[in-house]
Amino acid sequence: IYTLGIDIGSTASKCVMLADGKEIVAKSLISVGAGTSGPQRAISEVLEQAGKSKDEMAFVLATGYGRNSLEEIADAQMSELSCHAKGATFLFPQVHTVVDIGGQDVKILQVENGVMTNFVMNDKCAAGTGRFLDVMARVLEVKVQDLGMLGAQSTKQVEISSTCTVFAESEVISQLSMGTDKRDIINGIHRSVASRVAGLAHRVGIRDQVVMTGGVAQNSGVVKALEEALGHEVHISPLTQYNGALGAALFAYQKYQKAQRA
Amino acid sequence: IYTLGIDIGSTASKCVMLADGKEIVAKSLISVGAGTSGPQRAISEVLEQAGKSKDEMAFVLATGYGRNSLEEIADAQMSELSCHAKGATFLFPQVHTVVDIGGQDVKILQVENGVMTNFVMNDKCAAGTGRFLDVMARVLEVKVQDLGMLGAQSTKQVEISSTCTVFAESEVISQLSMGTDKRDIINGIHRSVASRVAGLAHRVGIRDQVVMTGGVAQNSGVVKALEEALGHEVHISPLTQYNGALGAALFAYQKYQKAQRA
Ligand code: SF4
Repeated sequence: IYTLGIDIGSTASKCVMLADGKEIVAKSLISVGAGTSGPQRAISEVLEQAGKSKDEMAFVLATGYGRNSLEEIADAQMSELSCHAKGATFLFPQVHTVVDIGGQDVKILQVENGVMTNFVMNDKCAAGTGRFLDVMARVLEVKVQDLGMLGAQSTKQVEISSTCTVFAESEVISQLSMGTDKRDIINGIHRSVASRVAGLAHRVGIRDQVVMTGGVAQNSGVVKALEEALGHEVHISPLTQYNGALGAALFAYQKYQKAQRA
Repeated sequence: IYTLGIDIGSTASKCVMLADGKEIVAKSLISVGAGTSGPQRAISEVLEQAGKSKDEMAFVLATGYGRNSLEEIADAQMSELSCHAKGATFLFPQVHTVVDIGGQDVKILQVENGVMTNFVMNDKCAAGTGRFLDVMARVLEVKVQDLGMLGAQSTKQVEISSTCTVFAESEVISQLSMGTDKRDIINGIHRSVASRVAGLAHRVGIRDQVVMTGGVAQNSGVVKALEEALGHEVHISPLTQYNGALGAALFAYQKYQKAQRA
């Protein structure tokens, strides 16, 4: 039995195919999100990887910001909060806190036995989100995917005191003009993101295990800074980028089973 | 008796010379602020305009973000909140609310008989400040001082739904790519600033007369949008840009008188 989970975010589309609700058969990530061809391409890529057709899918479930655009294709939709809790529990059965930093938002979820029990979210302010890192990478003229590696080479503490993306950008520009090493600035940027996210996380409380998901979890510098800011170990996995889509595929399997019983 | 008030902001330095605590003899505005030659140039310009020397000044008082850098020159320092309340009351004796939008911050002051009785301030977030308008003007490739004139020519309502500077910038870019008229976008930007500032103002309450000060008061589009958002007439004067420096010069006169009596 094959099920498909699709997560349509603001900046990326992800798709996961599951066999029997427990084995990941294929996964895809297209770097464009809602309102583009991304969702369709993410699905096609997964089907192709698995050598399956859409008709062989027992249930297709969509989640994420742009999930409503898939009404033609998906059998059901669910909120990304539920799917993230579900996906994280599949990857880390002992998870109690999920920190999801996406391209444009930050969500902190409390999880109890795979179910989300409380959450806090910021989608109004770019500070602490992937967008903050995008802006800084552009000013520093480095690739956003190189930030983690570069920040790890920092040898001096540089403080970025503004949390606001706009004011922090000015601080970075002035640090650059003072000749400060980019790698030290990057390390300061990672700590700025971590302190912003930790402030949000303290509103719901943090309990072990803490799992970080979303695109920014690929940045090892932010993960490390977040461990320091939270005082908790932060677990990641190469699969956490697919966490929402994975949760959606798991729910798709549940829904398929329920439909069979009915 | 001549007194000097100097207001050193983050983006501009202003200086006002008063005769006998009631008549403005000279004023200057230099578009660079704290940490530059701006403060010194603002003072020199005023002295030159009036044909006076620094020694002829009975009392010199500094205010604003960068006031501590003038300890050598100024006889005293005072907070910009007190000076803004004082200056606004000189210009508008019936003032009860001062809305000051500067280059990097927004302050709302409640004023009773020339004295500040309550205030609320945002200096952590660029939204609603002059910086927000700078960012938008850059994206739109227009001069920030032309925004008021251009927005007044708008014929269609365009909504900028994000308050965050970073997310609003993306909205503006996408409006431009859709071919939306710049003047309509600018009008939407003015309403965004006004709604942000009104949200802040409601925290302290708004009582007539409402006076708007700071650099952004030069933008007639923001003034008009603020009148709509607050539901109150908003008073401005060409002198409100000098409001902090004017208040400082008024306090300088008071301090001079007090010193004479002692
Ligand atoms: S603090 Fe900065 S990044 Fe956050 S909402 Fe304000 S302008 Fe946007």
